[in-house]
Amino acid sequence: MEKVKITEVGPRDGLQNEKTILSTQDKFEFVKRLVESGTKHIELTSFVRKDRIPQMGDAIELSTLVLPKFASDVEFSCLTPNTKGYEAAKQAGFKEVAVFTATSESFTRKNINMTVLESFTSFQPIFDQAKQDGIKVRGYISTVIACPYEGKIAPEKTLEVALRLLDAGAYEISLGETIGVAVPDEIEKLLEVLLKKIPISYLNCHFHDTYGMAIANTKQALSMGIRSFDSSAGGLGGCPYAKGAAGNVATEDLVYFLTREGYDTGIQLDSLVRVSQFMETKLDRQFSSRTFIAKKNAS
Amino acid sequence: MEKVKITEVGPRDGLQNEKTILSTQDKFEFVKRLVESGTKHIELTSFVRKDRIPQMGDAIELSTLVLPKFASDVEFSCLTPNTKGYEAAKQAGFKEVAVFTATSESFTRKNINMTVLESFTSFQPIFDQAKQDGIKVRGYISTVIACPYEGKIAPEKTLEVALRLLDAGAYEISLGETIGVAVPDEIEKLLEVLLKKIPISYLNCHFHDTYGMAIANTKQALSMGIRSFDSSAGGLGGCPYAKGAAGNVATEDLVYFLTREGYDTGIQLDSLVRVSQFMETKLDRQFSSRTFIAKKNAS
Repeated sequence: MEKVKITEVGPRDGLQNEKTILSTQDKFEFVKRLVESGTKHIELTSFVRKDRIPQMGDAIELSTLVLPKFASDVEFSCLTPNTKGYEAAKQAGFKEVAVFTATSESFTRKNINMTVLESFTSFQPIFDQAKQDGIKVRGYISTVIACPYEGKIAPEKTLEVALRLLDAGAYEISLGETIGVAVPDEIEKLLEVLLKKIPISYLNCHFHDTYGMAIANTKQALSMGIRSFDSSAGGLGGCPYAKGAAGNVATEDLVYFLTREGYDTGIQLDSLVRVSQFMETKLDRQFSSRTFIAKKNAS
Repeated sequence: MEKVKITEVGPRDGLQNEKTILSTQDKFEFVKRLVESGTKHIELTSFVRKDRIPQMGDAIELSTLVLPKFASDVEFSCLTPNTKGYEAAKQAGFKEVAVFTATSESFTRKNINMTVLESFTSFQPIFDQAKQDGIKVRGYISTVIACPYEGKIAPEKTLEVALRLLDAGAYEISLGETIGVAVPDEIEKLLEVLLKKIPISYLNCHFHDTYGMAIANTKQALSMGIRSFDSSAGGLGGCPYAKGAAGNVATEDLVYFLTREGYDTGIQLDSLVRVSQFMETKLDRQFSSRTFIAKKNAS
């Protein structure tokens, strides 16, 4: 069976968008259970200012607990918005970090208070240092397809940003369909433009399920050769642009889809469902992943 | 823009699987609002014994209210499990009825207490009479792909049942993926087998979203030429085989997907969202359609 890489973004992208702030011990338990269910790639945390994003305030403590225990079996990454964050991540033992930009000036301005160009200037020292340190850097591009402030985004704009990240030294580009409005035809057009200039093994898709299109978009990307996807357990995180709506595609839906289509994700679905049940209890809320609900109620 | 036919099954397939029994007046209001939102094909009710399915106990009263008012603009259909039901439907003024069978003996036995063969014997008088009366008959096939009791179903079994229904006189076959477990590859294999013997214009797809695969399956069927789909407003109905899980694919998700892919469904999405909001109030429950939730919370 052909392998598909799934990067579990629940501990970072998921928990950052939850109201409840989990204890470091609960986060550790979450990661431990993810590892036990077969997860091999985990975005663990973000090295940001605690006063800005309190959900990620324990980045150092969490990494110090998790990495020595699991880093031999699992690839962990973290967000490093600046060189200070990068140094902390390196100190904690990460072998992979991630930087974050977007296709849209308005979005980049609102999220990291920079222009897209400034974001590259700011990331270059991270890329340079990481190269020396033998640490991989992943480049996130938010708002491919559409931006909550600027509307539709041309594929050429995403291509331009992706090429800059690759030139800077990114080993993988995560294409973030941040607001979850895309349909498969749009994913096809975007990938057609990107694939003229970028080898497919550099590309990852990060879909949100806001309008219920994430699995159809995954099918489209898969049929064009993409073998790397982001998701969060149970759909953890939700959507900051439409209150109560779905955010990240749920790992359960993705694993169900990929496994039934004949791909090997390495993740045990029933075990993952129990991880998300644990998280429902800890966050005192109910997840909306279809596969999670069907499996939970069948057990 | 190419047209796609959507048959709204909320008033029958949806409400039959809801605990709350709506008044005839509320059902009338539901249908009125569906019509106002651009719906052109509605499965209105089922002519069954009231003691068996109390949700459909007002079939005659509802039809008598609805048909004279809306039948000039909208095609209404109803389920007629036997000749008694057929005569009542004809009397009420239906120009289209539907009969119901399945690919699986266990499912047919549990649902209509017949073998698959007996179901055909029982339907033949309906087909014969409908032909004389100039009334169209639609054939539902449940449990294509998989059965809750028998597991995986071979495409050839579905083909056999579909051919019998067409021989009997069905103008359209609704392929019911009753338990919502299918993935696009399975839909592709099923349609490949069917399309060798059946012109595509005779086929409709009826997907359930139990595992979140319905839109991906719709994309697959659409790419193979299917232009007729069933759905229910808000995802009304739920799944009788997994408590709390999703049932019929929501019309909102289907309309969002089709419209954004460039097809004309005739249905106004924002207006339909208000219809489902009305139904949430009447049924005192929350729908799980992703598009419905995103649109509702954005408004």
